[in-house]
Amino acid sequence: MTNKYIFTPGPVKISDDILAIGAKQTPYFRNNEFSKIVLECETNILKITNAPKNSRVLFFTASGTAAMEATVQNLLANDDKTLVINGGGFGQRFVDICKLHKKNHVNFKISNNNLQDTKPLEEYKNITNLLINAHETSIGLLYDLNSIGKFCKKNNILNIVDAISMFITDELDMQKFNIDALILSSQKGLALPPGISMIVLTPNAITKLQEQSSLYFDFQSYLADGLRGQTPFTPAVTILLQLHERLKQIVKTGVEQEILQAKEIAEYFRKAIEPLPLKLYSEYMPNAMTTLTPGDSKKASTIVNDLDQIYNIIVTPNGGELKDKIFRVSHMGAMTKEYTDILIDALYDYYKIKRKK
Amino acid sequence: MTNKYIFTPGPVKISDDILAIGAKQTPYFRNNEFSKIVLECETNILKITNAPKNSRVLFFTASGTAAMEATVQNLLANDDKTLVINGGGFGQRFVDICKLHKKNHVNFKISNNNLQDTKPLEEYKNITNLLINAHETSIGLLYDLNSIGKFCKKNNILNIVDAISMFITDELDMQKFNIDALILSSQKGLALPPGISMIVLTPNAITKLQEQSSLYFDFQSYLADGLRGQTPFTPAVTILLQLHERLKQIVKTGVEQEILQAKEIAEYFRKAIEPLPLKLYSEYMPNAMTTLTPGDSKKASTIVNDLDQIYNIIVTPNGGELKDKIFRVSHMGAMTKEYTDILIDALYDYYKIKRKK
Repeated sequence: MTNKYIFTPGPVKISDDILAIGAKQTPYFRNNEFSKIVLECETNILKITNAPKNSRVLFFTASGTAAMEATVQNLLANDDKTLVINGGGFGQRFVDICKLHKKNHVNFKISNNNLQDTKPLEEYKNITNLLINAHETSIGLLYDLNSIGKFCKKNNILNIVDAISMFITDELDMQKFNIDALILSSQKGLALPPGISMIVLTPNAITKLQEQSSLYFDFQSYLADGLRGQTPFTPAVTILLQLHERLKQIVKTGVEQEILQAKEIAEYFRKAIEPLPLKLYSEYMPNAMTTLTPGDSKKASTIVNDLDQIYNIIVTPNGGELKDKIFRVSHMGAMTKEYTDILIDALYDYYKIKRKK
Repeated sequence: MTNKYIFTPGPVKISDDILAIGAKQTPYFRNNEFSKIVLECETNILKITNAPKNSRVLFFTASGTAAMEATVQNLLANDDKTLVINGGGFGQRFVDICKLHKKNHVNFKISNNNLQDTKPLEEYKNITNLLINAHETSIGLLYDLNSIGKFCKKNNILNIVDAISMFITDELDMQKFNIDALILSSQKGLALPPGISMIVLTPNAITKLQEQSSLYFDFQSYLADGLRGQTPFTPAVTILLQLHERLKQIVKTGVEQEILQAKEIAEYFRKAIEPLPLKLYSEYMPNAMTTLTPGDSKKASTIVNDLDQIYNIIVTPNGGELKDKIFRVSHMGAMTKEYTDILIDALYDYYKIKRKK
């Protein structure tokens, strides 16, 4: 099972040096040595995201959804007016969370639009908060964070961005994009095992903190303990050690270089499959992922199954009404052209077309 | 940091074969192969805990505290009357959670009493639920789950047990002890990295489920997805693979044998240090851990620091008013007499006493 070729948007392919850390004894963590690790993780995340001065990072042992829910619970007052950009499964998840926690919100449904032109948002300029999934991973659409950030700044709106599926592969700059709170996760572009999610809070976001409504997801206690590099509860220590190493690598390489590499691989893949009966599904794809729709009568779900059964390759199926219409190919993680060629060659073989290199 | 000798109650020493799994690629998990892994984990946990027929296991990507909070949110009605056995830091945590979620409760403070005699509970026999930490890890006291289970059964009380720090090292039998809901965690007796917590629900507990109050910790959705071996959100896949292997080992060895081995090591340690100026702190210690108090003028916190600095050994300090009074030595995890000897020899050297073997 661990020997399959994976092109899924989490888990993603992990590099050998990061994997090796997973085989080390879990160290005791309530001491200065481990605090130093956590504080360095915070510093490097703030650097990579270009967070405003005095921003902070919270480390949660939980999936990305938990970080989404915790953010809604901690940053939204019940009578705030929040606009939720709902372009697919993850936008809908934000809507569900707002409903469950009785947060006043507008469910803004949208499709095939990256909001580079923010005119559709104009009638909501009196909202207090905006919630958006930078990369709506269910269909592979990347919103224009630059335009949306300008709209938020102009109208004094708290801009809360789930960047889980585009961090490290696509441009993300908290100051340039006027982002107030940012949600991240370990198992996507960071290419670590799943289990840790992170929230970056700017000083502005910190002023919006609500009364405690959960012990495990109380931002105040994470902020307080984080000052000395600790978490209120036992963290996924091993994944934090892997995060520490990975962040050091990214800072050393430069995140721009990482993004460029993801872009090259995405473009390489998209160009290579042009002769095949597969069409790009979205005009607004991130470097992180390519969403494809069959150009012939084949069902997307059949292609997904066949790639697994015949070629030992895992691409990502969709559910519901998109099941037969699209499938998704992730370029996140320790991806190379050589690894991508395994999928490209399999697709050529599958369609019985000879690949010209 | 990962080369220190650790005698902490989480993280604990992990065996080499389990660690090796940590270095494998994280596989895709939304498929039948991974579902099979999760379903086998469930079956083996139900077997090891001797859960009643039709019990279920929920797998959360989170620390044990999250499982404690989720259990309170999902199983306690606001107007239930819950007795919280508060014998230390973890009992207090249950009290804090009940307070935060406005659950009607009694804070039953207790010390140096394992409740083998349940007379002190008699005046509360009209309560609806009981919350207890089987091993109050902050001081190393093991409650008498057998007596408490009888009290609960006789009075028709929902018996909710946090067994995080005694599972696998001390006897735990859900049917014998009349336990309705059981909270477990990966990084204690199971000797895995931290990141996964589990809740075992009996059919009786399942009838008590409350209306959804959290998306991430909604028992109903975990129960529904768990039927096909899946979780509602991305799990800590690698730790689940390690759990799968570890549970297979325990079932093969027999949990009684694992408990016997923990007991032997705890007794070996306690006997070996008798000549030293260290006294056992509690009469009711589990096999999982030994709590010690200096019999001379040394401060416990000094001993903890010295063991780290001089011998590279991590034992567990206490905070607050117990800081100078006690320290704790865990026997959980992949422990052997040889590994325990490292600590024993260090203590003899520290006190400049010659050890007679």
